[in-house]
Amino acid sequence: MTIPPDDRGLLLGDGLFETLLADAGELVCFSAHMDRLAQGCGVLGLPRPDPDEIHALARSALAHAGLGGGRAAVRVTWTAGSGGRGLGRPEELAPRLLVTAAPAPWPKSAAKLATASVRRNEGSPTSRLKTLAYLDSVLARREAQAAGADEALMLNNSGAVACAAAANIVWVKDERLRTPALELGVLAGIVRQQLLAEAKDRGVTVEEGRWGIEALFEADAVFLTNSLIGVRPVASLDGRPLRQQVGQSTVWLLRGRR
Amino acid sequence: MTIPPDDRGLLLGDGLFETLLADAGELVCFSAHMDRLAQGCGVLGLPRPDPDEIHALARSALAHAGLGGGRAAVRVTWTAGSGGRGLGRPEELAPRLLVTAAPAPWPKSAAKLATASVRRNEGSPTSRLKTLAYLDSVLARREAQAAGADEALMLNNSGAVACAAAANIVWVKDERLRTPALELGVLAGIVRQQLLAEAKDRGVTVEEGRWGIEALFEADAVFLTNSLIGVRPVASLDGRPLRQQVGQSTVWLLRGRR
Repeated sequence: MTIPPDDRGLLLGDGLFETLLADAGELVCFSAHMDRLAQGCGVLGLPRPDPDEIHALARSALAHAGLGGGRAAVRVTWTAGSGGRGLGRPEELAPRLLVTAAPAPWPKSAAKLATASVRRNEGSPTSRLKTLAYLDSVLARREAQAAGADEALMLNNSGAVACAAAANIVWVKDERLRTPALELGVLAGIVRQQLLAEAKDRGVTVEEGRWGIEALFEADAVFLTNSLIGVRPVASLDGRPLRQQVGQSTVWLLRGRR
Repeated sequence: MTIPPDDRGLLLGDGLFETLLADAGELVCFSAHMDRLAQGCGVLGLPRPDPDEIHALARSALAHAGLGGGRAAVRVTWTAGSGGRGLGRPEELAPRLLVTAAPAPWPKSAAKLATASVRRNEGSPTSRLKTLAYLDSVLARREAQAAGADEALMLNNSGAVACAAAANIVWVKDERLRTPALELGVLAGIVRQQLLAEAKDRGVTVEEGRWGIEALFEADAVFLTNSLIGVRPVASLDGRPLRQQVGQSTVWLLRGRR
């Protein structure tokens, strides 16, 4: 499959994506990903794709790539399609669906974070969605890698901790689970949401709020979450080691590859 | 020409573009556009395209579209090419160049602006560049059109006036020319730059600074600028008429279709 040069996803980042974990052919949290995609379509003003078609294309992509039996990443791309002039969309939208599969190895070690100079845009709804306009995260990741780290910590324009370039960030402090509130420019991560729900079920106090970077240095343990890595411990931030000391009520996080 | 589905411009907005005015076959301000594109490549970490190749492709696209003799828009798209996993770029970048031409009619009337809720991200260098991650501007324009206007006024996260969805904004106050400073999240527009230089040449005081939305209601005249529209007067903002009263030393702006 190829894409025509007038696709609005290509020209303007006008579209959405999802990255799902496939485990032995099963698409993990498929309906949660489809719900988020549908919600994003509402924000962008796009028609919603058919989850059954996506499911069938994903299984076919996995089989075609010889990844049906193992662990793989499935990427679903939903562009606004062709047409329109400049920023304006055409009268009739004909979105374009792409589904691809690739190997998804586990990260080999705890993450080393570096704070990026690129900020999350808390003033745009796109900061809470997985859109095709993902360049800020690409640049943040590049900055982190240039600093010898493997993932970027992103602050928003008011200096609050928001998330990583391609993951949410959560931490434990005094046996409470803390994570930045979505309105700070945070991607509404599916593993983030699950983790908060599981913590509440286990009687752990969950706090979604606003913190500066010092909160991470004062945390008892810091984790990244996304659909491919599950829950990954963070070893250091800007070259300074972070504590990894969870107590009785939060030790389950360390088993958290999900 | 078609684009493979693993192009990073499509998947992540990883790339840049320029929109040039072609007038009777001449590419207006060609070298200024090439300079901005090269500067953007430096920020994104991309190799620079060959201006001679772009010039040849543009002339060919204009001829092919039957637009060689009139007024047309040429779009140059430079993507980071294929490859890499997730956010990470491949070891060897092979960027992809696309050049297309389309008619570019003059706007029929003065602009009606509406303030969008989507903010410019002053905390990212991408807010000063024309990148393929242009979705925030698409959404801002949609908001403005839904409000009955034809272009969006965008503020940044600190509430300062930044620019329009696809144009810079400049205004006259007491015979001074004012425009938001680039560090507020403003695209480094080529017509903006030319206009400021011309004003200085004419002895008009130019102020690049920080203003709230009230500055526009208090202005003597407000204009949008970009390469296709040149200088376009603004008639109203959020349904309130704006003054259009320039004096002796700034009346040249009204002749400003360039």
